[in-house]
Amino acid sequence: MSNKWVYLFKEVEKAENHVNGEWENVRGLLGGKGANLADMVRIGVPVPPGFTVTTEACNAYLTSGRIFPNGMWEQELEAIKEVEKETGKKFGDSEKPLLVSCRSGAKFSMPGMMDTVLNIGLNDQTAKAMIKLTNDERFVYDLYRRLVQMFASVVMGAPDEYFEDVITKTRERAGVKTDSELSAEDWKAVTNEFKSLFRRFTNRDFPSDPEEQLNLATEAVFKSWHGKRAVDYRNAAGIAHDLGTAVNIQTMAFGNMGDNSATGVAMTRDGATGENRIEGDYLINAQGEDVVAGIRLTEDLPLLEKEMPDAYSEFKGICEKLEKHYREMQDVEFTIEKGKLWMLQTRDGKRTAQAAVRIAVDMVEEGLITKEEAVKRVDPDQVDFFLHPQFSRETVSQAKSSGKMLGTGLNVSPGAASGIVALDADIAEAWSHEGKQVIMVRPETKPDDVHGMLAAEGILTSRGGRTSHAALVARQFGKPAVVGVSALDININTRQIIVGEKVILEGDWVSIDGTAGELYTGKLDTVVPDIKDPWLMKLLSWADDIRTLGIWTNADYPRDAERALNYGAEGIGLCRTEHMFFEAERLPFVQNMIMSELPFQQKEALDALLPFQREDFAGLFRVMDGLPVIIRLLDPPLHEFLPNHMDLVHELNDLKIRLKHAGTVAEIDQLLDQVRDKRTILKRVESLQEQNPMLGLRGVRLGLQISDLTIMQVQAIFQAACMVKNEGIDVKPKIMIPLTSHVNELQRQREILEREAKEIMKEQGLDIDYKFGTMIEIPRAALTADEIVEHAEFISFGTNDLTQTTFGISRDDAESGFLIDYLEQGILPENPFATIDYKGVGELMKIAVTKGRNVRNELECGICGEHGGEPKSIQLCHELNLNYVSCSPFRIPVARLAAAHAALNGKK
Amino acid sequence: MSNKWVYLFKEVEKAENHVNGEWENVRGLLGGKGANLADMVRIGVPVPPGFTVTTEACNAYLTSGRIFPNGMWEQELEAIKEVEKETGKKFGDSEKPLLVSCRSGAKFSMPGMMDTVLNIGLNDQTAKAMIKLTNDERFVYDLYRRLVQMFASVVMGAPDEYFEDVITKTRERAGVKTDSELSAEDWKAVTNEFKSLFRRFTNRDFPSDPEEQLNLATEAVFKSWHGKRAVDYRNAAGIAHDLGTAVNIQTMAFGNMGDNSATGVAMTRDGATGENRIEGDYLINAQGEDVVAGIRLTEDLPLLEKEMPDAYSEFKGICEKLEKHYREMQDVEFTIEKGKLWMLQTRDGKRTAQAAVRIAVDMVEEGLITKEEAVKRVDPDQVDFFLHPQFSRETVSQAKSSGKMLGTGLNVSPGAASGIVALDADIAEAWSHEGKQVIMVRPETKPDDVHGMLAAEGILTSRGGRTSHAALVARQFGKPAVVGVSALDININTRQIIVGEKVILEGDWVSIDGTAGELYTGKLDTVVPDIKDPWLMKLLSWADDIRTLGIWTNADYPRDAERALNYGAEGIGLCRTEHMFFEAERLPFVQNMIMSELPFQQKEALDALLPFQREDFAGLFRVMDGLPVIIRLLDPPLHEFLPNHMDLVHELNDLKIRLKHAGTVAEIDQLLDQVRDKRTILKRVESLQEQNPMLGLRGVRLGLQISDLTIMQVQAIFQAACMVKNEGIDVKPKIMIPLTSHVNELQRQREILEREAKEIMKEQGLDIDYKFGTMIEIPRAALTADEIVEHAEFISFGTNDLTQTTFGISRDDAESGFLIDYLEQGILPENPFATIDYKGVGELMKIAVTKGRNVRNELECGICGEHGGEPKSIQLCHELNLNYVSCSPFRIPVARLAAAHAALNGKK
Repeated sequence: MSNKWVYLFKEVEKAENHVNGEWENVRGLLGGKGANLADMVRIGVPVPPGFTVTTEACNAYLTSGRIFPNGMWEQELEAIKEVEKETGKKFGDSEKPLLVSCRSGAKFSMPGMMDTVLNIGLNDQTAKAMIKLTNDERFVYDLYRRLVQMFASVVMGAPDEYFEDVITKTRERAGVKTDSELSAEDWKAVTNEFKSLFRRFTNRDFPSDPEEQLNLATEAVFKSWHGKRAVDYRNAAGIAHDLGTAVNIQTMAFGNMGDNSATGVAMTRDGATGENRIEGDYLINAQGEDVVAGIRLTEDLPLLEKEMPDAYSEFKGICEKLEKHYREMQDVEFTIEKGKLWMLQTRDGKRTAQAAVRIAVDMVEEGLITKEEAVKRVDPDQVDFFLHPQFSRETVSQAKSSGKMLGTGLNVSPGAASGIVALDADIAEAWSHEGKQVIMVRPETKPDDVHGMLAAEGILTSRGGRTSHAALVARQFGKPAVVGVSALDININTRQIIVGEKVILEGDWVSIDGTAGELYTGKLDTVVPDIKDPWLMKLLSWADDIRTLGIWTNADYPRDAERALNYGAEGIGLCRTEHMFFEAERLPFVQNMIMSELPFQQKEALDALLPFQREDFAGLFRVMDGLPVIIRLLDPPLHEFLPNHMDLVHELNDLKIRLKHAGTVAEIDQLLDQVRDKRTILKRVESLQEQNPMLGLRGVRLGLQISDLTIMQVQAIFQAACMVKNEGIDVKPKIMIPLTSHVNELQRQREILEREAKEIMKEQGLDIDYKFGTMIEIPRAALTADEIVEHAEFISFGTNDLTQTTFGISRDDAESGFLIDYLEQGILPENPFATIDYKGVGELMKIAVTKGRNVRNELECGICGEHGGEPKSIQLCHELNLNYVSCSPFRIPVARLAAAHAALNGKK
Repeated sequence: MSNKWVYLFKEVEKAENHVNGEWENVRGLLGGKGANLADMVRIGVPVPPGFTVTTEACNAYLTSGRIFPNGMWEQELEAIKEVEKETGKKFGDSEKPLLVSCRSGAKFSMPGMMDTVLNIGLNDQTAKAMIKLTNDERFVYDLYRRLVQMFASVVMGAPDEYFEDVITKTRERAGVKTDSELSAEDWKAVTNEFKSLFRRFTNRDFPSDPEEQLNLATEAVFKSWHGKRAVDYRNAAGIAHDLGTAVNIQTMAFGNMGDNSATGVAMTRDGATGENRIEGDYLINAQGEDVVAGIRLTEDLPLLEKEMPDAYSEFKGICEKLEKHYREMQDVEFTIEKGKLWMLQTRDGKRTAQAAVRIAVDMVEEGLITKEEAVKRVDPDQVDFFLHPQFSRETVSQAKSSGKMLGTGLNVSPGAASGIVALDADIAEAWSHEGKQVIMVRPETKPDDVHGMLAAEGILTSRGGRTSHAALVARQFGKPAVVGVSALDININTRQIIVGEKVILEGDWVSIDGTAGELYTGKLDTVVPDIKDPWLMKLLSWADDIRTLGIWTNADYPRDAERALNYGAEGIGLCRTEHMFFEAERLPFVQNMIMSELPFQQKEALDALLPFQREDFAGLFRVMDGLPVIIRLLDPPLHEFLPNHMDLVHELNDLKIRLKHAGTVAEIDQLLDQVRDKRTILKRVESLQEQNPMLGLRGVRLGLQISDLTIMQVQAIFQAACMVKNEGIDVKPKIMIPLTSHVNELQRQREILEREAKEIMKEQGLDIDYKFGTMIEIPRAALTADEIVEHAEFISFGTNDLTQTTFGISRDDAESGFLIDYLEQGILPENPFATIDYKGVGELMKIAVTKGRNVRNELECGICGEHGGEPKSIQLCHELNLNYVSCSPFRIPVARLAAAHAALNGKK
């Protein structure tokens, strides 16, 4: 007995049995399109009858020297008979001829395979029958010439331009401008000319036998699986090459059979906003292509209700049925042939991030899906949408309708931006310094362009893909970017860009939408979407119920802490005290402290700083009332608080030159004073210079060296804590020591500081609920966590520095240097500063958590590097059983959702 | 039944039974001194009779409110009876009185406990008996006053200076200069005055009862275990506080009982050279102290053979017996009392490194010890002696005899050096720049002094210990140093040093011996000991038989490789190709390559370098014929090959100023050209500048970026290999890729390079036995070794960089900065750049070896960081089962011995 290679749409149960009932396997057998068509048939949705030749048949064909597997063709013919029976039409019949379409359909949607061939079954004889049936000769010859044309180009591989040429010439001959003005006679002539062309390119007559047409079309689909574009696509997308494609043969339905016919496309919900209303376009008496091509002005779908109330009512019912069945918003195509509604396709609908959130939430409330499913359906990265400026919907539709859209490319870095075109990095930087908004436009970018990219509002290129230099740098620095807009012809010499018939000069305004991948002329207004979107809020509250990870925030000021609380933060995981030192009114004291030569001078400077720090901390404690606040003691190297070395050298040179030309003694005296001061600072700066400051005197190393400074910080923390406690605030300070690499550093520093803390609590007669802990940001600290936690009550991974030391990569240098090359060339699969490197850094984290909790059972472990707001990294933190992730306030919504995803992934 | 608290020397077997026969436990029970005395008695060596009160008694006394344990005192009295029986003398007897000494003696030799009390048993009555026996009143009253003095100061804690004062005044009164000129009457008077002093300070009479003397002395020894100095010493040396001390009571023997009496000290072999001959000093008719004090000129021991042939012959026999028994060279004290030889003490003798080696080897050949024991007896660090310049023995003894020795301090960094005194770092540096040899002398050093210390030949301080800043920095940079020479009075203001009565001015010559810890005036000649010392060679050959680790070398040039082979290297573990680039004739090509803007320029530069590299490699291959040679591809960042940035900035400024004052047009033109050239270089230097070059564009990162350079290197390697193979050389190149952090780097780079290698072998028609591998010097590489070794056939730990990244410490900055503070303060127990940090870096190495060998069973693992020549690190490498360590040629002997030690330690 030979295999079953062909399944009628209505035989979906047989297909299920064949693959042991798994729907996923049915999709593998029949392809996505075929499986969905069969599925619609099963639930009683009107689908033009047809059948699917399986992917197994395709694979058998491709692996056996390109011969149809045994029995397949016979089964196809039998299936045609069944379709004839169902439709009452007949293949090749001279009265009621059956016409069918032939489409490829693999398991995963995949460009690059064979396109559709429509109207199979037409020949001179059946054409006549169709004319008799439709009373529309023009329509039929249009169908016929389309068949010949598609057959020639798609099935036989003849060049399409010759065929288009014929149509152009026919129009000229007829003296008309559009195809729709051509007559039946014209199309008939075109059909004949096409047949001649067919013969010329294929050395054979156009096959008039419908069965031969079907046979050749089936084989063409099989072959297209190995077409170059399909293979390239699969390589890029990581799809296996042995899946094969199915072939779908389906009865043609015609929406252009009079005013009781129509065709249209629809989404079951609004794909932009997510609102629960059918949205779509249709045309009375038209073909599907007309809707898509935009030649005729389409009608808004709700109007169909008035024109064809019965059909519309049935259509609405089917949409609801499909949503219920698939439990997802659907994107459908339909045709009404002489009042009879046919559904041609259904698939999950594409939507904006905003719509994705609303649809997921609504569906829960409609009882269609569970909260867990809703949470899983929204990608944490989609929450990004609510954080970046965007062009409003109105702006975009206005721009599109007024022809301002110039083209599309890859949406490689989200957000919208407008600016004047700058065609090289130096100009971009210069104009930006003048306060101009700039979009940097290049054919592609190189490392030399980075300074321009940083100065620009957004980045636009005509070449390159998702991992091109431009894309990587843009994402790195959060710049909106559209790359690979191939429609752009950028001429660096003439300083202009040609797009179709438009010319854009350097300095002209353009706008890019990095979220959608679109490019416009002129300046489009941007809006920041509302992060307080009620659907998002609801979804996030569900996420909160699911996640087990705490979501804390990195906040240095009360205002940051407040924002974070609004976004759902449950604690402060990192307060960087040094940020407070950089403020204008404080920096002089910090510099005095660094420059002081005598202990009493240093003491004076520290005494001046203490009240500032105390107020900083008190403010944070008040906002976070009852929640934990982790305060990291001074971390950066001292030279960061002093002027730049090269600047000082140049300033000193200038002073010397001025001194040489000084006129009066007073002037000389004044200059000499300045020289002396500069020299003093320069000397100190030079004494602080390090070959590798990243690996130098900072963190606890500095804390141990100038312990009076960290003592001042601890005094400020505990004085502030006592102060707010007296105000009735519930205060929980946690003091974090940075850059520990050896347990002794921690032990010594903690000893000094804890003594101070106790002193102050005794002074104030108060007991503060405090803890001491450390950052784990040096490989050695992770490797010796068992020792470290003897003196640390909590640990927090500083994954930025941990990544630098684990990889031996200086982020400052590498992210505008070789790291970008590495990502472009795929040497590194991901930027480890964006996503935690699981195998290296993640392994160290695992070692630390395991060793740490072996010694201190309930050890609180968190992460406060930038990775704390990145979904894949959050997944890792969940797997490592950390207590919380801490991220910037803006990333908190993303983190809440990602943490829920991680928890759900873990459940499977 | 009460415990046994007291053991006669001759009861050693009973003591053994008490502690289950373990000699180590006997030492614990009786203390080192007591156990050895008892042991000598057992083997028939004449020892003045006596007994030991056990450490158990001491502990019982200390833990029970300072009461002698039950029965102890009674046992002591019984033991005295037994001694009386043996000696025929009697405690307190008026005819033949027994005199004894009382000494403390813990398990480990320990300063800070109670010193000796001699002559216990003397009182007015026994003194008379002694006078009768010796016919020497002067001698007896000298003994008597000593007893009173020692008893007052040592037992009762009275201040010694008052007693010394009495003697001084007595001398003045008698009008003599030395004690030896004082008469019997004088000493008698002194004795009486001492008794009065005793009463004043202790509020009681000097105890005349011998038993009371013994009782108090015993208790004083017990108490001294808890004395401050003893406790401090134990804390510092890590000795347990609950060991307790034993008390040794021994019959006095007198070497000053006439011309048939003598006293002396001896080593059984020459402690300086190791030669097998008794060496020592003696005095006829003298006391032990006289030999040590150096008041009388001592005789060379062999002369005793003539003066007392019988005693000497017995003594010689005893020395041989002791050596045979202890299987070690002994340091002994003896007394001949009226022709009767008594051995007072024996212990293992101290010796120089050279002597240690020779003695160990000789003892093997004499059948005393095994080869393994000989190897274990020489500390690998002692081999260092053979590598550093030293003052010759003759020079030293001449210097000493001519009074040039100024003092001693701690020998913190080995080697000898001479130079003129520089009293601050700036002067040291300045004089060094003038070509002068400088010894930097400071009370103690600070981080600010480091530049001076680096410029100096050696370092000398008057304060500080083994972990002082000076000691740490000196060891760090291999500078001879003596610290803590308290005899020095350094006056920075007057720029002079006062030592006793000598004055040394800044600029005067001094010489320091960092191996011995000695300081001399003037310039002493240094010699480099012969590393080819035949005994060392023999010892190392035995070490080779024992060790399992391979010993390879780091060598860049054929001359290094030759030296390493002579020292016993078995391969080259690291050839740093970039060292070749720095040579004068090549650097311009390297710079051209870096500066080249066009590919063909780069190619030209590389083509010029290729022949040089080929010759380099061919030379190495020829020397290493048959042995593996690991060649590391270019590692350092490119900027290292270009001029310094700040230098360029200053040069450019100078040129601009000259331009301003230029006279002729020709001059202007010339200057303009120079400005342009400098600017071009400056721009390139700036483009290569990195915030943290240690973590920057170097190693494989650079190799991937300018792969033509690494291709050139691989071409050179394989062309050279083919060339020498044709000469009949057995060549085994191993190409090592540096700084890998991700397997993909390795895979890509190897792909490119291996293709090149195959190309050349094909061209030359030869097959070379080569391998590709990588350094493991980044934590991530260690953590992902399982992936790495998929593309690496061998791995080599670069522990310098691995330590930097694991600790997050920049060595360049830290070793003259906070790392020294850390070591001084004990925050780090050891410098991780000197000794591999077991817990952090060692853990990563373990992970790498384990994961690597899981994937590639026979993976060759080595180490090529500087740690490869350091004994503790070698121990770790052995434990981790590495295949080899690679170190600088000079460290190879050390490494061979250390590797053998590691193997022997492993066997236990």
